[in-house]
Amino acid sequence: MSRSSTGETGKTTTDISPTPTAGRPRRITVQSGIQDTILHPGTVRINVQGAFIVVDEPVTPRNGDYEHDPKDIRLPNHTAIVSHIAVDIGGSLAKLVYFSREANSNSIGGRLNFLKFETDKIDTCIEFMRKLKADHHQLNGSRPGELCVMATGGGAFKYYDRITETLGVEVIREDEMECLIIGLDFFITEIPTEVFTYSEDEPMSFVPCPAQPASIYPYLLVNIGSGVSMIKVSGPRQYERIGGTSLGGGTLWGLLSLLTGARNFDDMLKLAEKGDNSTVDLLVGDIYGTAYNKIGLKSTHIASSFGKVFKMKRAAENDAEDGCNGDYKNHEEAEHVQGSVELPHAPGTFQPEDISRSLLYAVSNNIGQIAYLHAEKHNLPHIYFGGSFIGGHSQTMNTLSYAIRFWSKGSKQAYFLRHEGYLGAVGAFLKRQPMNWGRRNSFESSVRNSV
Amino acid sequence: MSRSSTGETGKTTTDISPTPTAGRPRRITVQSGIQDTILHPGTVRINVQGAFIVVDEPVTPRNGDYEHDPKDIRLPNHTAIVSHIAVDIGGSLAKLVYFSREANSNSIGGRLNFLKFETDKIDTCIEFMRKLKADHHQLNGSRPGELCVMATGGGAFKYYDRITETLGVEVIREDEMECLIIGLDFFITEIPTEVFTYSEDEPMSFVPCPAQPASIYPYLLVNIGSGVSMIKVSGPRQYERIGGTSLGGGTLWGLLSLLTGARNFDDMLKLAEKGDNSTVDLLVGDIYGTAYNKIGLKSTHIASSFGKVFKMKRAAENDAEDGCNGDYKNHEEAEHVQGSVELPHAPGTFQPEDISRSLLYAVSNNIGQIAYLHAEKHNLPHIYFGGSFIGGHSQTMNTLSYAIRFWSKGSKQAYFLRHEGYLGAVGAFLKRQPMNWGRRNSFESSVRNSV
Repeated sequence: MSRSSTGETGKTTTDISPTPTAGRPRRITVQSGIQDTILHPGTVRINVQGAFIVVDEPVTPRNGDYEHDPKDIRLPNHTAIVSHIAVDIGGSLAKLVYFSREANSNSIGGRLNFLKFETDKIDTCIEFMRKLKADHHQLNGSRPGELCVMATGGGAFKYYDRITETLGVEVIREDEMECLIIGLDFFITEIPTEVFTYSEDEPMSFVPCPAQPASIYPYLLVNIGSGVSMIKVSGPRQYERIGGTSLGGGTLWGLLSLLTGARNFDDMLKLAEKGDNSTVDLLVGDIYGTAYNKIGLKSTHIASSFGKVFKMKRAAENDAEDGCNGDYKNHEEAEHVQGSVELPHAPGTFQPEDISRSLLYAVSNNIGQIAYLHAEKHNLPHIYFGGSFIGGHSQTMNTLSYAIRFWSKGSKQAYFLRHEGYLGAVGAFLKRQPMNWGRRNSFESSVRNSV
Repeated sequence: MSRSSTGETGKTTTDISPTPTAGRPRRITVQSGIQDTILHPGTVRINVQGAFIVVDEPVTPRNGDYEHDPKDIRLPNHTAIVSHIAVDIGGSLAKLVYFSREANSNSIGGRLNFLKFETDKIDTCIEFMRKLKADHHQLNGSRPGELCVMATGGGAFKYYDRITETLGVEVIREDEMECLIIGLDFFITEIPTEVFTYSEDEPMSFVPCPAQPASIYPYLLVNIGSGVSMIKVSGPRQYERIGGTSLGGGTLWGLLSLLTGARNFDDMLKLAEKGDNSTVDLLVGDIYGTAYNKIGLKSTHIASSFGKVFKMKRAAENDAEDGCNGDYKNHEEAEHVQGSVELPHAPGTFQPEDISRSLLYAVSNNIGQIAYLHAEKHNLPHIYFGGSFIGGHSQTMNTLSYAIRFWSKGSKQAYFLRHEGYLGAVGAFLKRQPMNWGRRNSFESSVRNSV
């Protein structure tokens, strides 16, 4: 399915240089913009001129209910009233983006704030939005009743009635895929030090904003949340979902919550960092006793994820049935050969660390291979990974990067983003922009379709 | 990596009609063949003329040590002495193929027997081979000392010394990939009612042997054992490993042995048949409350395998901490909305049946998608699924078939085999064949390379 832009075209509120300039000329939003905003909440034009990332102490301390991402985006030149917030409600997490004026500051402009909630605690998210509505005047000068919520993700449909009724505001629903790519285009094109490549030698190598925004197309977006969507993007708002897999973040979190004592995603990742997957994975060397040189598989190549578990578990059970002194054990010892699969440690004891690492590798490698194959099929040289699964975790990014390099023999490159979890929310926030806003003309029109 | 045939060319011992005939003319192996066999064990020429599958009562009762597949292949016209057996030792299973004369029968010919052992119990397999060696004269007329073992799979290297020393026979190692495709070519080309397509409406629709053997190329072989290999086959003995995934049978067996009480693969499959994956998988309908029509995803589409587990498990833990009468539970009930993810039954209770079905779907769907993408990339219209993972299990075949149809929009077809687990073992058994043996000339040369 391919979409091109349709709908009414917004008005330009800023003058744009035909070519990017080295300096960051300050633009003032014209007065008519404010009038439009009051008449049409949600159609405000955000001045992203000179936007950049500021890493602050968290504005709101992290707690059990939500997490305030400390990587705000400063919008030093935006002066108009913002009367909307945006929320992207996925299967596991709800992501919220809102604009606020600088507190205790005389400077113009403000910042985009990024928060995430668990979708199961959606009422906490709705309560937070209710508070934003109450504080709206203080935050950016509009009246409480003027707030409008831009909503995307599956939860925009599922929780539509609840949000509308609780907040008493207009909720405008936007298509999830479209918001993702609008958000990604914005990050790629407008925000310095946002996009980076990852390797063990150079963990975070930033990619400059492109001189020609059109040069970013075509690309593949791999969005990894609970599940995985792969979206081919051919141009501004021209996209098609070409694939996906159900083996995503939800699979990792779900299986690890059953298999380890970890109760949250951060704990799982910490476990994975300490683990050794070779105690549970069957490696090529375990099968061959050496590498399978003929087809170029190293002895450390993972032949089967969790491939050692079944036999080791059963050996342990047989042992237990034999009262731990039966024939089986002696038999095992007599049988043991160099490089054998059998039991480097006591059978049946699997460490949570090793299980976590194995599953993280399995899910990440798998996504990497499928992403490469879709990129290959559609001739897409650049692959962007977004979604909350990645969470800035080095092992995950390293595995994804490695998979893309391995499968493409170095011809394709994996890109990551510092705001990887907020593509959809930012896209929903920015969607209603006039023609030619922003430094790089990265959006060609303003569309207002309720989905 | 592409290989074409090399090495010495064997001699033809049977006359072959230039075109296949409807009847099955009886061929007698000439005397020189027997002399050659004695001089060069392992170079015997199997007469596959008129071969067909017979489904018998198991010759050897199934027991804990090995399984005798009841689907023997009758070779009604083979009269020469066979002085070799073949074994394919994989990461989880060792597969054995040997020839035997018909017991209590005056008919000429004999049959191929198929057995599998667990690789962890490799000594049971070696003991079985020792017994075959002792019985060799009775089975097919050669002397015990003449037995030769053709070995393939990783275990052919890992256990080489052990087999050689225990049996005191020559062990000839063959490349795993080459054996797989020789075996598959044989099954496709020579054995009626071997290859079939699968759908729910028509579970086993047999594909006739091709009139022109060359018409089977190119094809993709997806071999699913502990891990998965994907091999592009362009012609007889022309192949390249183009991909694979570590998410294979070993992953399913390993994770299910940890997550369910099942202690063997058959039990796991029985559990899966009774399960309902929607209690653990996050479906599109769970996220949207409806289908995501815009991109054609049905509400029953699996968005995230095990995507419900994390939140349900944590809810259960919170409940337990609250003494099961705390705020959380009331909160949950108040929050419950139509079509919600939350808790169709008591939180935290996951049925082994549901877990098994979810994981079987996840692994099979994933293999199906990756297979389709590789087939698409290399323009391969036919996809054959082999390996012990499939095991004739209808749910697995249905999921694989569905995945290929879904992703290829009906343009590609999944094929299965009744001897799916024995491709490598049969290939090793048949490898040393003379030029132009067999009804359909499916092998062009005899190669003798020790790997």
